[in-house]
Parts: sequence; structure tokens; C-alpha cells
Amino acid sequence: MHKSEIAAIMKSVRKGALSVEKAVDRLSHLPYEDLSFAKVDHHRHLVQGVPEVILAQGKSAAEIRSIAKTMYRRCGRVLITKATKEVYDCLRLEQAVYHPASGVISAGAVKEKTRGLVMIASAGTSDIPVAEEAAVTASFLGSKVETEYDVGVAGIHRLLDKKRKFSSARVVVVVAGMEGALPSVIGGLTDRPVVAVPTSTGYGTSFGGLTALFAMLNSCVPGIAVMNIDNGFGAGCLAHKINTI
Amino acid sequence: MHKSEIAAIMKSVRKGALSVEKAVDRLSHLPYEDLSFAKVDHHRHLVQGVPEVILAQGKSAAEIRSIAKTMYRRCGRVLITKATKEVYDCLRLEQAVYHPASGVISAGAVKEKTRGLVMIASAGTSDIPVAEEAAVTASFLGSKVETEYDVGVAGIHRLLDKKRKFSSARVVVVVAGMEGALPSVIGGLTDRPVVAVPTSTGYGTSFGGLTALFAMLNSCVPGIAVMNIDNGFGAGCLAHKINTI
Amino acid sequence: MHKSEIAAIMKSVRKGALSVEKAVDRLSHLPYEDLSFAKVDHHRHLVQGVPEVILAQGKSAAEIRSIAKTMYRRCGRVLITKATKEVYDCLRLEQAVYHPASGVISAGAVKEKTRGLVMIASAGTSDIPVAEEAAVTASFLGSKVETEYDVGVAGIHRLLDKKRKFSSARVVVVVAGMEGALPSVIGGLTDRPVVAVPTSTGYGTSFGGLTALFAMLNSCVPGIAVMNIDNGFGAGCLAHKINTI
Amino acid sequence: MHKSEIAAIMKSVRKGALSVEKAVDRLSHLPYEDLSFAKVDHHRHLVQGVPEVILAQGKSAAEIRSIAKTMYRRCGRVLITKATKEVYDCLRLEQAVYHPASGVISAGAVKEKTRGLVMIASAGTSDIPVAEEAAVTASFLGSKVETEYDVGVAGIHRLLDKKRKFSSARVVVVVAGMEGALPSVIGGLTDRPVVAVPTSTGYGTSFGGLTALFAMLNSCVPGIAVMNIDNGFGAGCLAHKINTI
Amino acid sequence: MHKSEIAAIMKSVRKGALSVEKAVDRLSHLPYEDLSFAKVDHHRHLVQGVPEVILAQGKSAAEIRSIAKTMYRRCGRVLITKATKEVYDCLRLEQAVYHPASGVISAGAVKEKTRGLVMIASAGTSDIPVAEEAAVTASFLGSKVETEYDVGVAGIHRLLDKKRKFSSARVVVVVAGMEGALPSVIGGLTDRPVVAVPTSTGYGTSFGGLTALFAMLNSCVPGIAVMNIDNGFGAGCLAHKINTI
Amino acid sequence: MHKSEIAAIMKSVRKGALSVEKAVDRLSHLPYEDLSFAKVDHHRHLVQGVPEVILAQGKSAAEIRSIAKTMYRRCGRVLITKATKEVYDCLRLEQAVYHPASGVISAGAVKEKTRGLVMIASAGTSDIPVAEEAAVTASFLGSKVETEYDVGVAGIHRLLDKKRKFSSARVVVVVAGMEGALPSVIGGLTDRPVVAVPTSTGYGTSFGGLTALFAMLNSCVPGIAVMNIDNGFGAGCLAHKINTI
Amino acid sequence: MHKSEIAAIMKSVRKGALSVEKAVDRLSHLPYEDLSFAKVDHHRHLVQGVPEVILAQGKSAAEIRSIAKTMYRRCGRVLITKATKEVYDCLRLEQAVYHPASGVISAGAVKEKTRGLVMIASAGTSDIPVAEEAAVTASFLGSKVETEYDVGVAGIHRLLDKKRKFSSARVVVVVAGMEGALPSVIGGLTDRPVVAVPTSTGYGTSFGGLTALFAMLNSCVPGIAVMNIDNGFGAGCLAHKINTI
Amino acid sequence: MHKSEIAAIMKSVRKGALSVEKAVDRLSHLPYEDLSFAKVDHHRHLVQGVPEVILAQGKSAAEIRSIAKTMYRRCGRVLITKATKEVYDCLRLEQAVYHPASGVISAGAVKEKTRGLVMIASAGTSDIPVAEEAAVTASFLGSKVETEYDVGVAGIHRLLDKKRKFSSARVVVVVAGMEGALPSVIGGLTDRPVVAVPTSTGYGTSFGGLTALFAMLNSCVPGIAVMNIDNGFGAGCLAHKINTI
Repeated sequence: MHKSEIAAIMKSVRKGALSVEKAVDRLSHLPYEDLSFAKVDHHRHLVQGVPEVILAQGKSAAEIRSIAKTMYRRCGRVLITKATKEVYDCLRLEQAVYHPASGVISAGAVKEKTRGLVMIASAGTSDIPVAEEAAVTASFLGSKVETEYDVGVAGIHRLLDKKRKFSSARVVVVVAGMEGALPSVIGGLTDRPVVAVPTSTGYGTSFGGLTALFAMLNSCVPGIAVMNIDNGFGAGCLAHKINTI
Repeated sequence: MHKSEIAAIMKSVRKGALSVEKAVDRLSHLPYEDLSFAKVDHHRHLVQGVPEVILAQGKSAAEIRSIAKTMYRRCGRVLITKATKEVYDCLRLEQAVYHPASGVISAGAVKEKTRGLVMIASAGTSDIPVAEEAAVTASFLGSKVETEYDVGVAGIHRLLDKKRKFSSARVVVVVAGMEGALPSVIGGLTDRPVVAVPTSTGYGTSFGGLTALFAMLNSCVPGIAVMNIDNGFGAGCLAHKINTI
Repeated sequence: MHKSEIAAIMKSVRKGALSVEKAVDRLSHLPYEDLSFAKVDHHRHLVQGVPEVILAQGKSAAEIRSIAKTMYRRCGRVLITKATKEVYDCLRLEQAVYHPASGVISAGAVKEKTRGLVMIASAGTSDIPVAEEAAVTASFLGSKVETEYDVGVAGIHRLLDKKRKFSSARVVVVVAGMEGALPSVIGGLTDRPVVAVPTSTGYGTSFGGLTALFAMLNSCVPGIAVMNIDNGFGAGCLAHKINTI
Repeated sequence: MHKSEIAAIMKSVRKGALSVEKAVDRLSHLPYEDLSFAKVDHHRHLVQGVPEVILAQGKSAAEIRSIAKTMYRRCGRVLITKATKEVYDCLRLEQAVYHPASGVISAGAVKEKTRGLVMIASAGTSDIPVAEEAAVTASFLGSKVETEYDVGVAGIHRLLDKKRKFSSARVVVVVAGMEGALPSVIGGLTDRPVVAVPTSTGYGTSFGGLTALFAMLNSCVPGIAVMNIDNGFGAGCLAHKINTI
Repeated sequence: MHKSEIAAIMKSVRKGALSVEKAVDRLSHLPYEDLSFAKVDHHRHLVQGVPEVILAQGKSAAEIRSIAKTMYRRCGRVLITKATKEVYDCLRLEQAVYHPASGVISAGAVKEKTRGLVMIASAGTSDIPVAEEAAVTASFLGSKVETEYDVGVAGIHRLLDKKRKFSSARVVVVVAGMEGALPSVIGGLTDRPVVAVPTSTGYGTSFGGLTALFAMLNSCVPGIAVMNIDNGFGAGCLAHKINTI
Repeated sequence: MHKSEIAAIMKSVRKGALSVEKAVDRLSHLPYEDLSFAKVDHHRHLVQGVPEVILAQGKSAAEIRSIAKTMYRRCGRVLITKATKEVYDCLRLEQAVYHPASGVISAGAVKEKTRGLVMIASAGTSDIPVAEEAAVTASFLGSKVETEYDVGVAGIHRLLDKKRKFSSARVVVVVAGMEGALPSVIGGLTDRPVVAVPTSTGYGTSFGGLTALFAMLNSCVPGIAVMNIDNGFGAGCLAHKINTI
Repeated sequence: MHKSEIAAIMKSVRKGALSVEKAVDRLSHLPYEDLSFAKVDHHRHLVQGVPEVILAQGKSAAEIRSIAKTMYRRCGRVLITKATKEVYDCLRLEQAVYHPASGVISAGAVKEKTRGLVMIASAGTSDIPVAEEAAVTASFLGSKVETEYDVGVAGIHRLLDKKRKFSSARVVVVVAGMEGALPSVIGGLTDRPVVAVPTSTGYGTSFGGLTALFAMLNSCVPGIAVMNIDNGFGAGCLAHKINTI
Repeated sequence: MHKSEIAAIMKSVRKGALSVEKAVDRLSHLPYEDLSFAKVDHHRHLVQGVPEVILAQGKSAAEIRSIAKTMYRRCGRVLITKATKEVYDCLRLEQAVYHPASGVISAGAVKEKTRGLVMIASAGTSDIPVAEEAAVTASFLGSKVETEYDVGVAGIHRLLDKKRKFSSARVVVVVAGMEGALPSVIGGLTDRPVVAVPTSTGYGTSFGGLTALFAMLNSCVPGIAVMNIDNGFGAGCLAHKINTI
């Protein structure tokens, strides 16, 4: 509901065309749809700059389909994360595309990309699913995206080689598990905002990504933005917001 | 050391004006100064967009003074965080200003501010020192800064009242301790990038800020950038980088 | 065993109708039944206001059936939580109803509901199983129950819209995972006692609900009652106790 | 700001006595006072049933005095928790009383107590400060309060002796450190709602109260309301809310 | 190898019947058998009062069979813990008995029981597997054992009823999950040494038994012996050692 | 209150010499004294085999003196743990002795020692305060005690040398910090029950004794009794109970 | 790329045989191969002393095969850790050997072994897979390896027996789970560098190897090198590096 | 006690010059001195390659002096770590030197250094105390030592500049706090064994060094040896052992 609509209501009240009771009622009729188990929020994009997105994990395929269809019908696009092929098959939404590397389903992505570039780097091969989730998300929202995978600090020459590339982007997303050192090293090589995503890659004291997360929060390079473990989607959102500011 | 300097060296080598050995030597003579206990990094600003900054905590007053003077002499400005009044008194650097609310010392801040606005909000009165650290840092680096304190979710009307203000900024820094819910609520009200800083405010299971940190990492609003506990400085850096992208 | 029965025993002792030895013996013959692997406690309802309830998890289907039948035979009602459809099928208790959304089995629920209302809110769709466990429990015990799902803080307008509804209840149960901010926000909008239930919804640093739990314990709104993770049953009990005080 | 005031504004708009712009402005002029470092919330009592309270910890004595005086002037009463004698001495508020056992300062407590009783029990002598914080808070808000200290489970006869007393209350607050078993045992003896407060009493694996907290959350007695560690204030609030429902 | 054997070697050396080299060699020929992947320790019973026992978990069925047969052949008895029915079926050791409630396999248990009694109590039905592991172990080693299950603190009358029984034992093993309060309550009712075993029963903040473990370590009843989570075997060993001291 | 006293009351009831009301009243008059902030439990020794003991930590010197004097007047002996010299000086109890190595104050210790021996070993010099707390406690309760300090596993020959000594005791208390390996090694050398006490000796990942605690709980030697960190007092109690079984 | 190659490039630049642009380009053409999802690093052996190795866990069989073949083609050898039989079957690399005890696949191991010996000890039978991973790795890299399994501290005579053997090695790898005491005991018996590897063997508070890890980090024997949990591969690398220094 | 001494005893037994009883006695008279609170171990250097060292923390100045003098008298050298200036002043040992940067006291260090070099690097200025502890220790034991401080990854050009230096050493000790990335980066640049020491430098989620520790254990560079937090002493020992293998 835009401000102009609210102003219109107030003007109707002044004119006597609308009773006070009805005005109160209409103001409370907010633009979401109630599916009883979910309240689909059609104007979130206006408020937050990112449309409502479905986290598949923890929802049944039937719930996902119902929410997704309501969204697609009203907004013309929908993004579903942490989804399996089963969810996609059950969705039966013609325009939807399944991205197997990241488990993302998208329909109706923005076609015209912004001119700014979101660069996405991963430390290892095992971090690619999370990096791809960030890439698909930022691209869906309208950002131009490039990726550079397997450039971890153990072979630092592979990384230094790409230094110029990082500085050509408007924002760099860095995805890493294990000791999570890559954002510090890339952050030390560029003046671009760095969005760091820890992954659950590793074993033992990697604690499912916690060690990488804490390493990133303690980076000696100041101003690195940190995401939850495996949250490529959040990184894609933030990168796109920064890219289009 | 700029690229043009490196090109010049290479050209001298081609011309024979510079021997191969000397070229190698010069390339390794990087623009930092060795104080034996510290290597002051004069060209970090060029590379990372933020000059090297001194974390006072864990260093002696004598070490701080020595590093600060070297920096100030070469770069014309210096920022010291987590400092006490004692450190300031011992510094004897005429141009330095002590910010008591945040424990920051600054000298030679950028005068001309960018046009974009960094908005800084705190949940409670106890979170102000960290919020002020962010404010002083972003302002030192050249951003225009406004603050709005004590707008926590317990009295949500105080917060809704400020909604327009948040949307007028280019980036919003949100500082909160205890349950750390404020970034989620502000993030749900604006389309600006939100930088969340957990603070060590609270007791018992606030775990010195850990609960607020994890709450922020798990925000149901996508794309919130999270900082280390009490890291107002990092938030100020990131906000400034985003503001001047 | 009621107090009047105890008084009767003492009077018999005084009259000499009962020997001291037998009195001691009878007092120790307490009203529970020994199934060797379980001691079914038939008078718990009198003492604690809530009858003994079976937590299915960690017990075999045969054990559950044996305990449930003993309870139903003596008390005329039984509640089983965290149960699967398999447990229900194996139970073969005619009056039992299986609630698939919550995994609760109930038989012989109180028909006449109290006039006070228990309101149950959930932050997201994934929190519904726990919210339903609370709803079925409170209803089984005799409370009138209403639910409002998917009103999380990311779309705060959905929530503000329901403010009046929360204040019409005698007690509000709030179920949320991830950053667990919903109880703080609802607690800031109403003067009703709030019972907060963290859920294991989320990934990474949601730590299976721990982050939501700690956020709720640290709420800046004073006096929120917190339950164990996913403990909808406990919330239903407490809400009913408060409702019928 | 009451609903009648809002209705009045709307009526003025209809009559043309108030311009639309001014109406919007007035609606945003909410009843809190801005002290720049704090926004004192004068109508919180109306909304949440408990007035705003000052947590002394983490605030300077000057800040506390300024907030307290503003509150007292407008609401006629004020409560300050986790305060030292120094804070009290600096407060210079004539009506204020310092409760040394709990570190609470109160001024203008409700004189007429409700008829319902809040019973407060502590496991040991070391838990008394937290129990007293609950007692002073509930009494300040208007509840009748009785206390029973040092009734821990190691000498269970001391506890069974008080069983009748617990059942005469409308709500029982149980304060315990170390293994935190007391709420389970009291909860097994009464049908009253039990509010459990873990304390930081103990050493080694008591983890500053965490062990007691988790024990209480896992109580085999269903429906126990758990508070943050050492949060006697919150327990007093919840007990009073339940008592006056 | 007994001390007398060592004395005999030394005497042979003195007599010249044994060379110094051979004496050194023989002393190092210790009474264990090398299966390459395991060194079966035949004289452990002499040294530690308990024979070597096989923890099935983490070993293949073939390894277990090989170790068990070697032990049985030399010592005439063997105990295997945390075993499945599959392990038992693969064992093909005629004298072995499988205890399904605890997952223990035993062969050649001591027939003549000591006169002292080991009493084993469990808080709930779900704790029985661990309690049974303790019971089978103590009985295998030669102790007389009695059990009392489902006597948790939620229904404390079931427990007080058994007070005399606990005091008739020489040592009491108490097995409990969730909040782990039972050892404190039983320890407060008897002067017998109490061996407490936390179990992984529970969910959420029971942390797989950690909460019960820490509660037991922090018991306000002094001198409770605590075991690792689910370590019924260790409790059986300790109880037997105390019983036969 | 002994059983004979209870029998006497019941007989008076039968004879009519005592009214039912008075009988009920008298039965609830249990043998503890109410100091308002503490309920001193005079018959605990009878029930638990160990008299009530005062943990100084968390209590004021005035509270300690008041509780200690009440205990000493009624029981003729008192033990205070984790006490400072200041507490002792303030106590003014003539018969009291201050043990500086352990911070224990004792008065009226049992003079006639049992014949069985409690052996107490410590890994390092820094573990002595906790070991001494165990030694003073066991001795106060009536056990014969010997100590062997600084026999940690880094110099295993110092330990093997004492093997015979350990086996001459009825129970061995082993006190160790850091990696907590000593109980495993001593437990592998003797058939006596071993009581393990972790200490907070160490730094970094010793986690204030947690690493030693967990190592002891995971000992590959079965049946080691584990105490809370730094709980020498509890170890002394358990050792004495086992010694006098 | 060796230093001589770089010198050659520089000389070509001086001679004018190579343009500055091309020189820059060539220097950035580093010796790795880009498979898009992985950048295979062919000169790592030169730099780090150990060739790049494939951690199978978290990679698909197709990815592993592709990386392995590229490596084998260029370097003539390849090592894959934490692999299953399925990975091996899918690999179809003729020279590859599958080591079932450790889940390692190797092809092209160094034939000529160094003269120094790497000794590898395990505490129990369940620790053998990790110990074997270390053994296969060190052997693959060219070290002579001997193993001694099941020599844990519960039967310390089995261990003392092997003392001479440990001192004959150049470096000793000690693999242990549960309380992780073995490295301390072996470290106390030899002057060789000890590499300690905690394993996830155990249950309850073994925390998947964390207890063993912390015990090893806190060893009272100074200078023990600690590896991540279950990281036999890392231990094999370090042992080989020390062996060939 | 050397093996030859043991052989001599055995020969005396054979000759009859020594009774069996006396031989047993003498063998148990091991070369340590009993100070009652400490058993000073004079032959540890022979067994472990490093003499016994005194950790000052947790010991009184008097205890330290007594142990130190005994050691110095017998071995001619002594090393004390984590000591304050007060300890040094109280020591009154003429030959002792106090190293203020590391808090180490040394007397009688080895004069002739080995030819191999131990290189010690620190990430920041705050890590120097721990780095110096390693340096003083390795030098005391007889290694040649060089240091390179403040070469953290934020300014990676400072680090690459030193690459050649690292490769000229036989072993590299890397000391770092915060995100602990430095060992990975240095480990990627050299084939020398790397010993990593996490420090407690940092705040918030640096968890007193735990984040750096876990990062180092999870390094993507294989074979890094990790020490306990702030354990510069252990790193010095291990580096010297590797250097002199």
C-alpha cells in the first residue's frame, strides 16, 4: 500500500465520503493474502527492496507449491531456496527453473541487469553450492554476476592472479569453509565491500562452519560483512542491495 | 606504491638504466615502515579504501604513541579505537581528539563529507558506546552521519516513528545487545542495506553479546550484514564503503 | 488420594479400628500402578493441575500402548506427544484422535472449555507443528484456543494488524525459530502474560533453536515465560494453568 | 496516547479543524520524552501492564539519575534494578528506598496490594539476592508477597513441610542455582503456575547459572516458566501479571 | 603375572640359572596377546579388579568376535557393551547371552553373588536401557542387584515410598535424563554412596544428556559420583568395586 | 527426629492424649532451625552420613558466622569450605582451625579415625589446594588420610614408584588439571575405587578445568567416579562414605 | 614455475625480446589448470613439500575423477582421503589402490623410502582407521612407517613394553580418542617429536573427539604437535616433513 | 638414571653383593627430589629432550623459588614461564635473566647454538609476548632464532616480502590471534614444518583465542602443528626438537 493510497483515504474522510470506522478498517486491510498456514506478503519488495522468498527447508512440498503459486500470480516472480529436485517436480510451475548446483528454484527473474558487477569467489570445490546460491539470487534480483571458484589461500598464487578482477566489481562475495581465511586475504587486496559467507565444509573442529564464521567475524581487515553459515541467499540479497544503492 | 611506479621500474630495466638485481630489490621495498614491533602500512588506504587503524587494546601506550606518530607524519591522519583517556594523555599528539563516549581517538578526519547519509540506531542507552564508535569512524572516513538512540523493540512506537528517517539514509547501522531483535525489525521497515552490530550489553544468557550476534545472523529479513560483538569500528568502515561505492 | 481419605485413616487409628502398623502401610499404598517399566501416576492431576502425559519419543510402541491403556482405563483420558502415525496405528484405542500437524494423540479431551482465551501465534510456517502441539494441549486440558500463524517480524504490518486480537486473550503463546524476536515484539504490544516457545527451525547458527531460546530469555520486554526448544506441550500446560488460575 | 485521543484527532480532521499534515504530525508525536541518550516511555504501563524500568548495569550514575527523575516526575514511580549503593547515593530522589539484599531502588510503589499471593522460594542462602529482586518487584507492582528461603532439595523435609504454603499462593516463584532441581520438586507438589529463576550460584560446571537454567528448561514437570539467569526482576513481573490477570 | 613370578625370575638370576639378558626379556614378555589390531589384556582383572571389556561401538563384528573368543578362551568370561543383535548373531559363542534391554552380551558371569546389594533406580521409562546396562554389568561381576524404575521427581510420592529400600543397599546407582534431579533427591534421603548416570533422554536443551550431567556434577548433596552420559557400564563397575571393597 | 519419636506421637494420638490437629502440627515441626536467611539442618548427618557443611563462597561473613555458630552449638562440629582468612578472622569461634592451603575452616573434627586409608594424589603443585580440601574433609569426617603430590604423567616414573602405595588404600582420590590424564593412569594400576577431581589449573583450552573434567568422564579405565571442577570437598565426602561403608 | 624461469622472462624483457605487456601476462600465467569447478595446482609440491591432495568428502564422484585424472596426468601421482569404495570404483584409474581400513586411495606413491622411521601408535582398535590414514599418507610421501596399535593407557604395561621402539623413530604419531591421554604418556617416555591426532571415538562427553583434542592441547608434556580431529592425513604430512627435514 | 646403572645393580644381585630386597629398593630410588609440594625431576632432559620447566602461573613465589633453586643446583639451568617481575625479584638467583616482553625467566641457557634456524613470525603487535616466549624458549634450549613481527594477512605485501626468509629456516613458528589465518598463508608459501600458536588477542567472538585455534586446526594447508592458546613455550620446545632431530 503506497503513501498516496493512505493520503487518499484521509482525504475521503475529510470529505465525509468515508466514515471514520471504515477508514480505520481499510487502513488495517493490508496487502497480504492469508493462506491460513502462511500470510503471503505481496508488498515486501517495495518496503525491503527484495521480494518475499521461500525457504523450502522445513515446509512440505504442498505448502511450497501453494505459497509459490500465490506469489507468482501476484508478483510475476518467485525464488525458492534449499530446495530439492522433488520439490521442483511437485511444483508444476511452467516458468520455474531448477538450479541443481545450489538447490534454488527461480521463476521470472529480472531480465535487465544492473551495470554494476557482483563478483563471487569460493575457496574450494565443496563451497560451490553456497556460492551458486548467492550467484543465482543476485542474478534473479537483477545484478550482473561473475564467479571465480577454488581460489583458496593454500595456493595463494591462484588468488593473487585474480586481484584485478575483484577490484573491477562493485561488491565481492567470498564463500569459504574450514579456516575461513579467504575473506581476510581478498579484503586485504581490494577496496570493494566484501560479503563473507562461511560454509559447513570441513570436519572435526570446523563445527559445521562455526570456525569459518568466527574467523570471518574476527578478520583483521575491517568492515567485512558476515552472513550465517551456508547462507548464500542472504549474501546474494546484500550484494544486490549494495550494488543497486 | 602505484602501478605507474612499477611500470617506471620495468621501463628502466628495459633501458638498462636499472640492473635486474636492483629492480627485484626495489620491488620488494614496499611502502611500509618497520618499527621492529610493528610494520606501519602507509599505502593500505589505496588498496583497501580505509587507512590502517590502531586497536589500542593489547598494546602499551608507548607502542601506540610510536605507531600513531609514524602514521600521522606520513598520512596526515590517524584513528585509534578501544582507547582509554590514559592512552590519549600519553599520546601528546596536538591534533588528536578524544571521544569519551566511544573511547576513540582521531586526528585529521576528512573534512568534506560525502552527500550520502549513514544512519546509526541503537536499541538501548547501554549500546551507545559501540554506536558512537561506528559514528566517529564513519565520520572520520568522510561520511555524513546521523544517530537515533534508544529505539529498541520493547517500545515499538518509538521505532515506527523513525521509519522515514531510516529510508532517507544510504545505509543503516543498527546496534543492539540482549536479544538483538532490532536489526530484523528495522530491516523489515526499509530497503537500505542494514549493518548489524551486536553488543555485550546484558547478563546471564546474553553471553557477552553472543546471543545478539546469533540472532542477527539468523534474521528472517534477508541480507543483513553482521559484525563481530562490540565492533562499532568495523560497522563504520563497512557503512562508509557502501556509502561511497 | 484426597485429604479426606487421610483424615479418615487417622480417625480410624484414634478409634482403634486400625492398628498403627496398618495405618503406616496404607499411607504408603499410593495411587499409582506399577507396570514394572513404568509407574503410572493416577492422582497427578489433583496435585499438579495437569494429568500425567506420555512423551512418545524414546519409548517403544508397546510400552506406549500399555501405559496409555492403563491411564485411559483409570482417568478416562490420555495425551501422547511427539508421536508418529505408527504409534497411533499400534495404539488401537478407539477414542484416540491423531493430530498430524503436531504429532499429538489425544483421547477424552475436556468438552466444556473455560471462558478465557489462549491465543497462539507463530512466526513462520515451519513453526506450526510446535504451535499446534501447544494448541492441542491447551484445548485438551479445557482452554478455548485461537491461532494466528506466519506473523513474523520481517513483515511487521501483518503483526501490528493483530494487536487487538492478542489483547483480547488471557494469555498469549508465541512460537518462533531463527532469531526468536517475535515474543519481544508481541510482548511490547500487549499487557497479557506471554509464553515464548523457541523452535528448531533454521540452519547454521540457529543451533537447532538455541539462538531463539537465548534471544527469548534476553528479551528487553520484562516477564516473558520461556519454554524448552520445541516444547509446545509445556507451553500449552502453562497457558492453561494461567488461564484457569 | 489513548484511543480516544486518536479518535478526537480523526474527528478534527473530518471537521476541517485540523489539516491532514498536522494530523499526521500529531499522530507521530508519541508520548515519550527524548533525553537524546534515552527515550523515556511514559505510556508503557498502559500497553504492557508494567511501567518502564531502569537496568542500572551498563549505565552511568548520571544517566540513571536523569532517566529516573524524568520517569518519577511523569509517572509518580520508578524502579531501578541491579543498582549499587553508589547509584542510590547519587540519585538524590527523596522518595526512593534502597533494598540492599537485592540491589533494587524503588520509589512510589503501589500501596494497595492485590488479594492474590505471590510465593517466592529460594534453594539456598546464596540465592536470596535474586529472590529478593523478584519479591521487591512484585510488591512494587502491587502484589502481596511471601518468601520461604533455604528450602533446597538436599534437605527435602524442609521443603515438604511447606507444601501447603505453596498451594495457598496464586503463583510460585522458585529461585535456585547449582543443579536447579527445586522448581521440578515444587512443581511436582502444587498445581500453581511455577516461575523458575536460575541463579549464578555455584562453581565449575555450574557455568554461572547455565546448568540450573537448562535443568529448569528440561523439567519433567510440564509447564514451568523459565527466566534468564539471575533475572529476579523478570520473575517478579511475570508473577504479578499472572496474579492480576 | 603375579609378584611371585617376578620374585622367581629374580631368584633364578641370583642362582645363575637365568642370564641377565633373558631375565630382562622375560620381564618384558607381558601377559597380553597380540591380535595385531588389538592387544587382549589377560591380567587386567588382577590389576584393576574388573576384566577387560569390549565396547562394541566403533568395532566391526569380525573384530569383536576375534577379541571376544580370545578373551573367553583365556579368562572363561567376556562382557560386550553397546552391542546390537547383529553383533550377537555374528558372535557364535555358545555360552553368550544377549540382554536386549541394554544391548549387553555376557558370557561366564560370576555365579556366587556378594552379600551386599547394589540398588539401581531410573527416573523414567526411557532411561531403562542405561540402567539395565549398569544392572547386567554389576551382576556379571558378582554383585547382587535390585532395580526400581520410573521413580522420577515429578511424582515424588513414588520416590519417598522407596526410601527404606535405598538405605538397605550398600551403594545406589541413579540413572536420569532431562534435568537430572533424581540423584540429588535420592542422595538427600540416604547415607549410601550414590553413583549418578546421566542419560541422553530428552530434547532441545537436554543436549543429549549434557544438562543432566552438569546438574549431577552440581548436586547440592555432597559426594555424588558422576559417570559419563549413558555410561551404565561404568556405573556397574564402580558400584561393584564399592560393594566388594 | 527419629522414628521412635514419630511412633510416640502416633501412640499419643491413639490414646487420645494428643489431638489429630496437634499431631499433624508436631509432625511438621522438623529438626531444623530457621534463621530466616537459612534453615540449619541438624539431622542431616543421620540421613546422609555427612553433616551439613557451609560453602563460604556467595555468603557474607555475618551470614557464615551466624550459621556456623548455630551448627556448632547443636552438633559440636562445623566445616566451612572455599573460605578466606577474612572469613576465619570474622568467625571468632575458638575451636575453629584455618587450613590455609585449602581455604577450609574446621571445628570439632572426629578424633578417632577409621582403620581404612584414603589416599590422595595430585598431578601438579598447582592442584594442591583442591587436594588439600579433599584431605581436610575426609579427615574431619573421620578417615585416615595420606597424600602424594606432584606425580603427574609427564614424569611417569615418579608415579609407577608409588603403585604399591595406592593399592594399600581403600579408596584413591586423584586430583589433576590440564589434560586430566592422571586418574586413567592410576586407575590402570590399582583395583581400588578411584575418585577423580578436575581442577581449574591450566590456561587456554583447559577451559577452567572443563577439559580435565571431560577427559576423566571419558577415561578408558571403567568405573572412575568424577566430581565437579575444584570440588575437593565432594571428593572427601565420597571417599569417606566408601571408606566407612 | 621456478625462479630461473622468472629470471629468463626478465632477461628477455631487458633484451627487448619480450614486450612489457607480454611479460606481465606471462608472469600471471601460473602453473595451475582451470577445471572451472576446481583449479588444479601442479606446482604445490615444489612450494609446500607435499603435492595437492583431494579430500573426497563434500565432492561428487565425477568431480573427484576429473580432478584426480588431471593431477595424475601431470604429476604422476595422486592421493584421495576420506573416500568410499564407491568413489574408488567410479575413479577407473588403473594405478590406484584402495586402502579399506583408512578410506584412502593412492596412485603413484614414492617407491624409495627415506631412512628415517615414522612410528604410528593408536590407543584402541577403534582408532585404527585414522592411524592408517596417517600411515598410508606418510608412506605415500616417501617415509618408512611402522605401526603399534591398541596400546592405550588403561593397560600401561602394554605401552611401557614398546618404549624402546618409540625412541628408535624420528617422529612418533599418536592417535587416540576418549580422554586422549596417550600422547602425554608417550611424550613422557621419549625425546622424539610427538604428533597427536584426536579421534571421534567415544560417546557422551567425548563430543566427537573434542575432549581428546583439548586434552592433547593441554598436555603437561611440552611441545606436542596437535592435529584436527580424525586428521590422520595431516599427521602423515607433518610427520613426513619432520622426517625429511 | 642411565641404563648402565641399572645393569650394574643387576650384576651386583647376581654376584650376591646386593640382596634382592635392596635391589628392588634401589631401583625405586629414582632421580627426583621430593620437596613435599613438588617432585623435581632431574633426569627429564635425558628422557624427553627438554628439561623440566616451571609454569609460574598458579604457584606461589616461595614455591617457585624453592623448585627453581633445586633445579639450578642440580642441572645448572632453569626456565620459568608466565612469570611476573615480582616472581623474578623474589627469586634472588644471580644468573637469572628476566625477559619482560614474554614474562620468561631463564638461567643457564645453552651457549652453543645449533646451525639450523627457527624462524618466528607474528601477525600483529599484540601477539609479540607469545612469540617472544617461543623465541626465548627455543634459544634457551640451543636453537638459533630469528623473528619477523607484524606481518598479518591484512597487508599481505608485508608478508610476501619475507617469503624467502621463511624458506631459509628449518622450522617456522607462526603466532596469530583474531581469525588465525597467518599459518595457512605462510604454510602455503613454504615447505618447512609450520608450528602454529593461537593467541588470546582480539575481542567478542575471538573467544580468548579459540577462534584462532580452530582456524589453525582447520587449515587447508596440510600438516600444520597446532599448540594450545598462548603456548609460546610449547611451540619453542617443538621447534627446537624438530630443529635438532
